[in-house]
Amino acid sequence: MQLLKTTDQNFSNQFQAFVNERREATVDVSGTVKEIIADVRARGDAAVKEYTTRFDRYSPESFRLSDTFVTQQAAQCPQEVRAALEVAAERITAFHQKQLPQNIAYTDEVGVKLGLNWVALTTVGIYVPGGRASYPSSLLMNALPAKIAGVERIVMTVPMPNGEINPAVLAAAQVAGVTEIYSIGGAQAIAALAYGTESLVPVDKIVGPGNAYVAEAKRQVFGRVGIDSIAGPSEILVVADDQNHPEWIAWDLLSQAEHDPSAQSILITDSETFAQAVITAVEQILKTLSTQAVASKSWENHGAVIVVSDLAESISLLNRLAPEHVELCVDEPQQLANQIRCAGSMFLGRHTPEAIGDYVGGPNHVLPTARSARFASGLSVYDFMKRITSLQCDEQALQTIGKAAISLAQAEGLPAHAGSVAVRLG
Amino acid sequence: MQLLKTTDQNFSNQFQAFVNERREATVDVSGTVKEIIADVRARGDAAVKEYTTRFDRYSPESFRLSDTFVTQQAAQCPQEVRAALEVAAERITAFHQKQLPQNIAYTDEVGVKLGLNWVALTTVGIYVPGGRASYPSSLLMNALPAKIAGVERIVMTVPMPNGEINPAVLAAAQVAGVTEIYSIGGAQAIAALAYGTESLVPVDKIVGPGNAYVAEAKRQVFGRVGIDSIAGPSEILVVADDQNHPEWIAWDLLSQAEHDPSAQSILITDSETFAQAVITAVEQILKTLSTQAVASKSWENHGAVIVVSDLAESISLLNRLAPEHVELCVDEPQQLANQIRCAGSMFLGRHTPEAIGDYVGGPNHVLPTARSARFASGLSVYDFMKRITSLQCDEQALQTIGKAAISLAQAEGLPAHAGSVAVRLG
Repeated sequence: MQLLKTTDQNFSNQFQAFVNERREATVDVSGTVKEIIADVRARGDAAVKEYTTRFDRYSPESFRLSDTFVTQQAAQCPQEVRAALEVAAERITAFHQKQLPQNIAYTDEVGVKLGLNWVALTTVGIYVPGGRASYPSSLLMNALPAKIAGVERIVMTVPMPNGEINPAVLAAAQVAGVTEIYSIGGAQAIAALAYGTESLVPVDKIVGPGNAYVAEAKRQVFGRVGIDSIAGPSEILVVADDQNHPEWIAWDLLSQAEHDPSAQSILITDSETFAQAVITAVEQILKTLSTQAVASKSWENHGAVIVVSDLAESISLLNRLAPEHVELCVDEPQQLANQIRCAGSMFLGRHTPEAIGDYVGGPNHVLPTARSARFASGLSVYDFMKRITSLQCDEQALQTIGKAAISLAQAEGLPAHAGSVAVRLG
Repeated sequence: MQLLKTTDQNFSNQFQAFVNERREATVDVSGTVKEIIADVRARGDAAVKEYTTRFDRYSPESFRLSDTFVTQQAAQCPQEVRAALEVAAERITAFHQKQLPQNIAYTDEVGVKLGLNWVALTTVGIYVPGGRASYPSSLLMNALPAKIAGVERIVMTVPMPNGEINPAVLAAAQVAGVTEIYSIGGAQAIAALAYGTESLVPVDKIVGPGNAYVAEAKRQVFGRVGIDSIAGPSEILVVADDQNHPEWIAWDLLSQAEHDPSAQSILITDSETFAQAVITAVEQILKTLSTQAVASKSWENHGAVIVVSDLAESISLLNRLAPEHVELCVDEPQQLANQIRCAGSMFLGRHTPEAIGDYVGGPNHVLPTARSARFASGLSVYDFMKRITSLQCDEQALQTIGKAAISLAQAEGLPAHAGSVAVRLG
């Protein structure tokens, strides 16, 4: 953990170094992934079967999970968890429904009809990791926007190492309206989703988090299908004055740190006394936390506390860091929020811990990481829709605007472009 | 050119093969591009200078074009062309302004405040190819949506082989409100835009078409910055009954074919007689077309005419092909248009040649190619904005929804997530 102060002479350089820091060693797995994808394209199910036997020690008759199996397994999800998934789904649905966009249609002053229609994708694949990172909440966050957008076929892949699956993931799949589930993972699952096999009809877009192989596979199939952004190590930035309970803020910082040793938790405060109290509280809580091994690594290696003279200073620092999550733990959070241009999602006031947004807030928890909030946004219904524009001229309208098109086509050396307009002008 | 008929016994297989056809040989330039990017990251301007001298035979004092130079050069753009660029800019602006989205803000029934704010990107880079493919219209289509979205800094790179530049491109840059212009191209320009050099402050997103090196470089810097989709060979699909002039439709098919030997023009019609008349007209026009070399290659190798029994049949074929451009040359185009789910942009009726949309229609001409209209959309103001969501609970609201969050956090094995909520519930 590093403690920076804006009043330090060297702060500007220190902060720039902090912004530039890369938190994740990237291993080049592109060769291996390329081979797996080529193999799945060439040999289909047979290749998928081989990789799944090798990597997951699992070789079922069919990779598609039957409705009976899903129902049986999902029934083992504790009732309290299923109820919580339903609360989450309801709130996520309500927020994402408000995103549904309006089509555009009008006739302009020269008689040209113009339009823009939003249309749902036909079929989407959702990758769900196996093992420790198999989060039912992420499945809801990926599948529900697709469903709300109107996607008809929502295919999910989830690896079942040693034939095991988390019942809560299957319960979430039921709650979210997933239509097909395949028990495959890794680059082979991404290849199967993108190119199809004898038993899996390919999808048009693939979303969802995964390990380095999955991320690289998504990068390689991009273009053949759409993908969401590549998830990196995540971060939280908490802006807090000294009117907060230090323990509350400490829990918030640790809720990010416990995700991943590469995760990053940052506190910006205008009180050095408060900063020290939070640091002490973090150390106290870490002692008894069951995720201590991961959280302490993240906090030690990537955690930061920045003491500013005035919280207004935090905005420009924050916009440069472009954090995935921002908490504004002050009395008037909206004043600061209005100045924020680079962040994934904001959590306002003293009673909105970021974890609320991970589960039941309503906004999506799939958010831009690793400074990509400079240009990217959280997952939404827009990611599962596309826009088709339209144009209609009648004879008169074409007379009005056609000549300018002919001039430009000629200037660009494209005579058939010019000709297709000129022949209609008579 | 191939002629298919849905009544042929083998049509289904023939059509599937046609859908799967890849029109462009992909050369693997990833190694070369990787080296160039690493070199520009390591050596900045010095590396850019070397590559530009080598590839463009051009080595100016500074790569940034001065306002004086831009004004002087742009003044050489013919007045008629500049006037046409202004007509185009006005119409493109009008259409894209209608896309500007609404923020979301509401308090739900349990007292949680939710929001979604659309915010413009801060800085964007636009790649403009040099040489033959240096189209001023494309510059308008890339830069104007950024400007309308509210992007403050719009940086353009355009290579100047042998120190030469197309005056119309600089005129378009003026009309579109580009704020900085650098005379560099290739993978080195993409690297400079993504990572910055001593003389170029990096951007947050890069858009615009380019050759194989540029496309691969964009792919490699994706994540560090945002990119638009990778442009592939483009296509037009014309649905026409026998009430059209065969020559009009022939011009339309050729307007696509003249772009690129890999471009594809497809006619779907319900009249074999009309089909033959169009084929004859294409051959006639080709004889005198100055772009004949390119257009005839495209038409011979990739052109297709599909004769259907009823134009209603065209819809499912069209949705599988997911063409970049669709013309519906019939009396009631809207009836067909309503059923189209996969297309970049539609041109309705007998008086709307696709070339109108390339220049002055209003909708964007940067459109999804190579079947990516299954999941992708044309360029828009949305591509230059991001969404920041927000959530605010008060004490009471957190009491209402907090328990479900705790259940899910515990089920996912994340005790600090649970703790950050629990500590506030008291």
